[in-house]
Amino acid sequence: MSLIEHILDLSTLPAERLSPQALGLARLSLLDWIACAIAGTDEPVAVKLRALAEAEGGRSIASVTGAMAAPARMAALVNGATSHALDYDDTHFAHVGHLSVGVYPAALAVAEEVDASAEAMVAAFLVGAEAAIRIGMVLGRSHYNQGFHQTATAGAFGATVAAGRLHGLDAQQMRHALGLCSTRASGLKSQFGTMGKPYNAGAAAANGVECARLAALGMTSADDGLCGLQGFIPTHTTAPELDGGRGLPPKDVFLFEDNQYKLHACCHGTHAMIEALLEAGELKGRDLDNIAAFTLRTNPRWLRVCDIKRPRTGLEVKFSYNWLAGMTIRGDRTGDDRIYQDALTEDAALSTFAGKVQVIGDDTLTDMQAQGSLTLKDGTTLSISHDLAVRLPQALLAGKLRTKAEAMIGARGASLWAMFGDLTGRSARDVGTALRKMG
Amino acid sequence: MSLIEHILDLSTLPAERLSPQALGLARLSLLDWIACAIAGTDEPVAVKLRALAEAEGGRSIASVTGAMAAPARMAALVNGATSHALDYDDTHFAHVGHLSVGVYPAALAVAEEVDASAEAMVAAFLVGAEAAIRIGMVLGRSHYNQGFHQTATAGAFGATVAAGRLHGLDAQQMRHALGLCSTRASGLKSQFGTMGKPYNAGAAAANGVECARLAALGMTSADDGLCGLQGFIPTHTTAPELDGGRGLPPKDVFLFEDNQYKLHACCHGTHAMIEALLEAGELKGRDLDNIAAFTLRTNPRWLRVCDIKRPRTGLEVKFSYNWLAGMTIRGDRTGDDRIYQDALTEDAALSTFAGKVQVIGDDTLTDMQAQGSLTLKDGTTLSISHDLAVRLPQALLAGKLRTKAEAMIGARGASLWAMFGDLTGRSARDVGTALRKMG
Repeated sequence: MSLIEHILDLSTLPAERLSPQALGLARLSLLDWIACAIAGTDEPVAVKLRALAEAEGGRSIASVTGAMAAPARMAALVNGATSHALDYDDTHFAHVGHLSVGVYPAALAVAEEVDASAEAMVAAFLVGAEAAIRIGMVLGRSHYNQGFHQTATAGAFGATVAAGRLHGLDAQQMRHALGLCSTRASGLKSQFGTMGKPYNAGAAAANGVECARLAALGMTSADDGLCGLQGFIPTHTTAPELDGGRGLPPKDVFLFEDNQYKLHACCHGTHAMIEALLEAGELKGRDLDNIAAFTLRTNPRWLRVCDIKRPRTGLEVKFSYNWLAGMTIRGDRTGDDRIYQDALTEDAALSTFAGKVQVIGDDTLTDMQAQGSLTLKDGTTLSISHDLAVRLPQALLAGKLRTKAEAMIGARGASLWAMFGDLTGRSARDVGTALRKMG
Repeated sequence: MSLIEHILDLSTLPAERLSPQALGLARLSLLDWIACAIAGTDEPVAVKLRALAEAEGGRSIASVTGAMAAPARMAALVNGATSHALDYDDTHFAHVGHLSVGVYPAALAVAEEVDASAEAMVAAFLVGAEAAIRIGMVLGRSHYNQGFHQTATAGAFGATVAAGRLHGLDAQQMRHALGLCSTRASGLKSQFGTMGKPYNAGAAAANGVECARLAALGMTSADDGLCGLQGFIPTHTTAPELDGGRGLPPKDVFLFEDNQYKLHACCHGTHAMIEALLEAGELKGRDLDNIAAFTLRTNPRWLRVCDIKRPRTGLEVKFSYNWLAGMTIRGDRTGDDRIYQDALTEDAALSTFAGKVQVIGDDTLTDMQAQGSLTLKDGTTLSISHDLAVRLPQALLAGKLRTKAEAMIGARGASLWAMFGDLTGRSARDVGTALRKMG
């Protein structure tokens, strides 16, 4: 089956055929996405995009984080960029990008427009995310290595599918929506480190909303915008993977189940170590003086990324195994972006502890694994390990995401979970209202 | 000088350093562009985009052809698509695309927003068009052959420059506007033959308006979005031309002076023949029975494109040398898209005349040249020839464009020329009002 037929097939899956496990994760993603958006409200890129939304005005259709309601396209643009501003949202490694920040803003905006239930919005998100993952996989590593940003490019198609599903597009309209998206999707990695990166996520969401809406209005486009002659795939990658889509898993396998969450506001390469230390209950809140030595084994690629031995700024702390190990053991809230202040680099206890840490590259470990051994002052040793690739039970993940939300946005994190921990009876407009008021 | 410095340098050229010849042509382009937009008002793609604009609403900033005022970005989107719907707008061969439909909608919308004079709008268009031409040239043939549509891709940068100049961006802001555009610009040729093609032009204009406005609001982006590492040029062409921009002509050479106008609503490959026949004054309105034979020489590439011997539909007439020769000689208004009806294929006089026409491929002719020889019933022969690459004197071109406008939109064409044949004292808002009311 060609990629476009595969995506069309997927986009019309009835809700009862969606994997409950994947839907559960999509609900958690919603909460995490909202928390990231609220936390990003005061970031400069968010402020500037809200100024654009205010300057344009328009019908009050969909919610803008921390502000007013706006037309759906504009709300998706602002919310996408706002939620990606802190770079703290979820990641899907096979997709090679961040799913929530491109797809959820489109799903929410259109769900508010058509007054869908929160559950219908989550289902539309899940189907859009699956489409984005699969298109991202076919675009593959060569697309990313050439300089494209799957979050924005494959993400726009996911946003189109989510928005199109909520508009109730038939297969032919969805085909046109995808065709329009194929000529609209864009996004470069060379924006990393600038406001252009979160803008990419907003643009993906906005493109999806626009293309789905135009298809609903009867706009037509190329029949196969994805893999047709000079379609998006052949023009945007030199080496399409999975036989151009024919080698993708069937539509009832939900790749979204591998979605990953960033639980700590520091380099992803340090997360396996942090989780391993957190899992060693014996260490909780322990005085760093009681630890004689800590040896960490990690994939060698991380040694060039996050093994800064003596960080000089709060930002460098985010890339320092030995600083983060000390912080984790003594109970610092590594999930709170605001704790990474320059003053941490002069913290005497952390500095002393750093001298006891040894980091060893070990290529038998994947880049999602960490292993370590601690020697306490009394001579006992403790082995720790963690593999980020192992899926957490959802109840456990939920707890961690809630802790993260509370670290990021304080009491609003608890309210968020109280309101939307169970979506039964909730509408997308309830979610939008919360985003407007809590941002 | 790098391409980005070159474009920045160009974008701030003071009005008095712009070539009067190029400005004159830009004024003619404005009139031609408005006529194309008005003529496109009822095309399906225009109707659908107006429906989108009406659904979104928003502040009444800039004019939408045949409708209301809307936010600048939306007006640019609708007007770009509307003016390209008939595929009858101007072409720049070195740019490899259509300049007016991407750049003028952005220039007009922002000029209305900031209440600029019509002359300031034309100057901004010209500078934007020069930027689009140069970026299109560097992207080159490989970009086009890979499947990208310079009208949309290079056009978006031109729209950004035009919009940015009207917003009064300083060099640093313009750099950021171009950087944002580098992650936003898109557009594929695989949309040709669908509503996606005119949508590409609208998207280019809308992207330019959005990126310039965001830069004015203080958004930042990659320093060199064009030729920097994984910037737009290296990610969108395998063979950048002109040494990545270093080989471009200096900024005081105006490449826009080579802009070409489509004067007949049929295949471009037939235009040199039509102009050659029109220039032979002796033929004007002549009875086709008086002509014994017509031999046409044309570049061989056109034989596969527009040498349909017996057209079966009005559309095929647009690709038929022998039908169009008869129509031109007897004085049919080849500039009026509406005359290409299926009934023409059964016109007895044209059918008989077609039997007297011989078309010969001649590779000593460029694809912009035509030569022919007519033998009249009385035995006299007449040689004709035309080269589209030879620039017409502007007064002559103006007459032809006015005739085209009147063929397309009747008396409104004459009013347009009466109102804006001289732009002195006119504001961009006057132009916008005309577009709204006459569309």
